[in-house]
Amino acid sequence: MKTREVIYEGKAKKMYRTDDENVLFVEYLDQVTALNGARKDEMIGKAELNNGISSFIFAWLQKQKIESHFLSKEGKTEQLVKKLEMIPLEIVLRNVAAGSFSKRFGIAQGTAIANPIIEFYYKADELDDPFINDDHVHYFSIATKEELATIRQMTLAINEKLQELFDLADLKLVDFKIEVGRTSEGTIVLADEISPDTCRLWDKKTNESLDKDVYRKKTGDLLAVYREVAKRLATIQEDK
Amino acid sequence: MKTREVIYEGKAKKMYRTDDENVLFVEYLDQVTALNGARKDEMIGKAELNNGISSFIFAWLQKQKIESHFLSKEGKTEQLVKKLEMIPLEIVLRNVAAGSFSKRFGIAQGTAIANPIIEFYYKADELDDPFINDDHVHYFSIATKEELATIRQMTLAINEKLQELFDLADLKLVDFKIEVGRTSEGTIVLADEISPDTCRLWDKKTNESLDKDVYRKKTGDLLAVYREVAKRLATIQEDK
Repeated sequence: MKTREVIYEGKAKKMYRTDDENVLFVEYLDQVTALNGARKDEMIGKAELNNGISSFIFAWLQKQKIESHFLSKEGKTEQLVKKLEMIPLEIVLRNVAAGSFSKRFGIAQGTAIANPIIEFYYKADELDDPFINDDHVHYFSIATKEELATIRQMTLAINEKLQELFDLADLKLVDFKIEVGRTSEGTIVLADEISPDTCRLWDKKTNESLDKDVYRKKTGDLLAVYREVAKRLATIQEDK
Repeated sequence: MKTREVIYEGKAKKMYRTDDENVLFVEYLDQVTALNGARKDEMIGKAELNNGISSFIFAWLQKQKIESHFLSKEGKTEQLVKKLEMIPLEIVLRNVAAGSFSKRFGIAQGTAIANPIIEFYYKADELDDPFINDDHVHYFSIATKEELATIRQMTLAINEKLQELFDLADLKLVDFKIEVGRTSEGTIVLADEISPDTCRLWDKKTNESLDKDVYRKKTGDLLAVYREVAKRLATIQEDK
């Protein structure tokens, strides 16, 4: 499929139009950022790792009846995805206290959260993606009440499926961020990516971070830990 | 009623036990703070003004079937109130964009909000009263789902009644903060105070602030504007 003009350029991905108006071409980039883009580095090989991991996870979730924008993995760093009307939310689910949650509430990293906590952040770079509640979602016409209920259900279902998957790879899913969009028929489906950029993944035995925290906290080699995640996922039979 | 030991000392009030274990004695203080206590000043006369305004409003709300802890105004700066099990929430309702809402979302001060926005802040000094969502409320066992639904309904009802009252005083109710608690029977009722310390009140014609913002922003004489609010409320017939 011949690619056309870039319609979006983010911190870790570029998106292009294709000949099919319902399909976009996604190119992962060899770039890593932290602090909402204030820190930025090139990492040769990251695009291939994240495209591989995210494609594997989206394909696996589709077999578990989790609908998404994912159509196919193309080259090493590319995907084809359904074009969606994106909902400007970062949807965070927390199974274990870590990161900003630990800081905000003074709760030790690693404390289990019995009932997963869902948080919405308003995707608006100029506002620094503020944490919002349902009333703000409605004030900004981000989603309807019914859509929010669907998004919550979906996020909980994705959490269950991801926990199963990562458990097979001896990883604990501490928390994750997803994004969703509306198909042309108005159905809300999973979009964006699921990777060690967007999930906190801890080794089940050692609680060692195998995710972007090694870059955020400068405690390890990002490419090495992403490679480890890819290797562990590769051992899982796709038909499981 | 003879007062006993202090059981709470806050930024603007002291509370004492009384001979009746279900009743507390509240003393308003001549003190004003901003920035969560970082700025603090003595203001002789503020206690009397706020006790007068808050007692008037709570009595008026009770006639409008809004239950609260309020029992009686005692001296110039004192009240008797029902002892409650306090719920550690600051419940904020916004009719018009102002303050932290305008800052956080880049929305001009004075922009009307068609459907009032309710926000919950977790009252925890050591955490700086963070903004939270319903999942956090449940995680911290602050209130049950049913209680939260009651709190939302109550807050909207209080907003309607307060808007009517302040309208009679030619004041626009921009936003307000309330606190609630459980009676010994488990009923949730309004507590704390309602005053220019806890409400943003703008003159209906000039949009001039008649509330604590004159102290926060150093734009006017706090005692003079609180006196103006008290004077305007005094012109309202209690039986209205």
